Amino acid sequence: MNKVAIIGVGHTKFGRLEGKGLLDILCEASLEAIEDSNTSDKDFDSVYVGAMSPEAYNHLSGVASALVDRISLLPAAADHIKNGPASGGSAVKNGFQAIASGMSDLVLVVGGEKMTHITKPGYITSNVATLTHHQAERPHGVSLPSFAGLLTRIYLKKYNAKLDWLSDIAIKNHRNGALNPKAHFQKTIEDFMKSAIQKGKGNWDNIYDFLNDNTTNPIIADPLRLYHICPISDGAAALVLCNADSAKEYCDTPILISGIGQATDTHIIFEREDITTLRALRICSEQAYKMAKKNPEDMDVAELHDAFEILEAVQSEDIGFFKKGEGAKAAHGGLTEIGGKIPINPSGGLKARGHPLGATGVAQVVELIWQLRGEAGKRQVSGAETGITCNFGGFGNNIISILVERI
Amino acid sequence: MNKVAIIGVGHTKFGRLEGKGLLDILCEASLEAIEDSNTSDKDFDSVYVGAMSPEAYNHLSGVASALVDRISLLPAAADHIKNGPASGGSAVKNGFQAIASGMSDLVLVVGGEKMTHITKPGYITSNVATLTHHQAERPHGVSLPSFAGLLTRIYLKKYNAKLDWLSDIAIKNHRNGALNPKAHFQKTIEDFMKSAIQKGKGNWDNIYDFLNDNTTNPIIADPLRLYHICPISDGAAALVLCNADSAKEYCDTPILISGIGQATDTHIIFEREDITTLRALRICSEQAYKMAKKNPEDMDVAELHDAFEILEAVQSEDIGFFKKGEGAKAAHGGLTEIGGKIPINPSGGLKARGHPLGATGVAQVVELIWQLRGEAGKRQVSGAETGITCNFGGFGNNIISILVERI
Repeated sequence: MNKVAIIGVGHTKFGRLEGKGLLDILCEASLEAIEDSNTSDKDFDSVYVGAMSPEAYNHLSGVASALVDRISLLPAAADHIKNGPASGGSAVKNGFQAIASGMSDLVLVVGGEKMTHITKPGYITSNVATLTHHQAERPHGVSLPSFAGLLTRIYLKKYNAKLDWLSDIAIKNHRNGALNPKAHFQKTIEDFMKSAIQKGKGNWDNIYDFLNDNTTNPIIADPLRLYHICPISDGAAALVLCNADSAKEYCDTPILISGIGQATDTHIIFEREDITTLRALRICSEQAYKMAKKNPEDMDVAELHDAFEILEAVQSEDIGFFKKGEGAKAAHGGLTEIGGKIPINPSGGLKARGHPLGATGVAQVVELIWQLRGEAGKRQVSGAETGITCNFGGFGNNIISILVERI
Repeated sequence: MNKVAIIGVGHTKFGRLEGKGLLDILCEASLEAIEDSNTSDKDFDSVYVGAMSPEAYNHLSGVASALVDRISLLPAAADHIKNGPASGGSAVKNGFQAIASGMSDLVLVVGGEKMTHITKPGYITSNVATLTHHQAERPHGVSLPSFAGLLTRIYLKKYNAKLDWLSDIAIKNHRNGALNPKAHFQKTIEDFMKSAIQKGKGNWDNIYDFLNDNTTNPIIADPLRLYHICPISDGAAALVLCNADSAKEYCDTPILISGIGQATDTHIIFEREDITTLRALRICSEQAYKMAKKNPEDMDVAELHDAFEILEAVQSEDIGFFKKGEGAKAAHGGLTEIGGKIPINPSGGLKARGHPLGATGVAQVVELIWQLRGEAGKRQVSGAETGITCNFGGFGNNIISILVERI
């Protein structure tokens, strides 16, 4: 199997990108990655686009072929991977396999979504709910936020954890996001509280009081409140991959993709033995560690899929960083902060960087590349040499882990 | 690069499959392929689903993960490839790369679409038209059938060809389809004419008069008439792939995927140097021939993407079987019939087998496997040992060719 290196990255600002279309932002991230990889004069063999719903959100099909033409990569092969919120990770995996197999030498992977222009109430939540089970779940009106609420209740009870510990994850991720110029939110939750006080909306002794106030932080999916849930965002992120043997021709600091895993769990969540365990993550992260000959203890940094803050807690356990039931407590204890035992989501995560569905799995890898190159600025994890991601599709029935390390 | 073999195939009946959902037919084809490959007791590593629009047609996302659970292949990795009408070919390519890279040993590839339940007039045509260029084409009201009509006019004029020669392609494909129990249409156009005469709808001296009659064969996209255009169909087709080194453990007649090519052309059709040349097909078929160390003359059988009969003519040229401008004439002369110089679409093609979008690229390969195994029954191409496909996305801006041969 050919070894595969990442030689360039691109990342638009995430957030409300007004006046731009999906193809515009895919182009922007792609061209940035191509420039970063010094391959502007090279012929790309293939292009992978990860995007969940360009058809429903942007009235576009064939986005991968359209992109290839628009950024003048003709006649490169073009594939669109539509794999739910794991579309980005899936695109990285398939781009990896294109090079690992020897079918391609130079590959562009880009993930993106343009969603904030959609004004019809409930349209996005309903569309995302097409991921739930058609017969066993959807007729009951469940959506992904409602699953997250139920999971939170069970987790808090089973492991004697506190909702405030999940708030700690949101607080951390907003602090990190405020250090990431590409993040959707550039403010900490402390900033939001100060601003609310200044505007006379209330007065709170501490941040937990602010976060438990129904006015400033309403319940969305009981017990989860607004600040426990990621926003709807626009954005795109891109990677240039090549055979690791020729990576140093293009850049001084290529990063190796040394492990990839992907696994599926039951579609119907009720059928899982233990809803608080993400079996697909256990399996796919083990695959990635095994392939890279690494252990969870070897990881210096991780980007997890905190679409809901409960997920970061659970994922931090199932990816091997903490024992079952101790993820939320570990976050509360500061172990996942930059400078902690295992920094999680230095980018700000989905909570603060934002969650343009198809972009997320790629953006997670981009953040790790910045960290491993030592280019993460104020949120740099000191001396980071290896990192891992969790890109989460459906409600944990499709999970991908990508492990990267310095060469 | 590991060599990749096809060890099992599955194919639902194509047509109007009432009372079944998309997942039902994906399951049916998948289980048939697994049984055919004697792998029912094996662990699959990954599953690729090619489908264009499950979200728009079936309110389903995450179809690949859902399928993996439903047919008890957990925890196999699941990817959904949504690459327009080339989704099936794209899924085959990515499944191929999974094994060629060594990341997977046993892979299921399935393509499918469920469309005939949609009753809203124009819904499918509008949805497929999301493949056209958003600014340069769509505002003018073009759809894929209208492009095909324009291409036909230019082709007929430029090469001094006759519309009846395109009718000959439809006549051939319906004759072939009538020999294929899985085809959408089980009747020849001669059968339709006889039936119309019996019903007193008219009387015609020959089949061309019938096909040029506005009552029985109305113009859809001038000059193309109903019988020059493929139907809307439901259906699914599946393949089981494995490392060719272990293929004989599973079956006596594994077939090698010895060449794959994929290329992109301009999104805006007006920008092409010559609209009658499919540049992406020229490039991707050359890639496939080169990889397999074969020439067009070595092909015994081909499955081309005749969504409109003009496309079979043009593709038969650009894939290297006939000189430019001679494809329609060759079909008229019988060279592409079973028993002719190069039999094209013995399955009935999209015209008669039907065109469930995501299924087509996989079904083309299934037909070649049947032909190469000598299992094609009354439509068997005698002694077929090698074959090639053209799976066509957008309006020729995304084309995949897959070349298979007997081991």
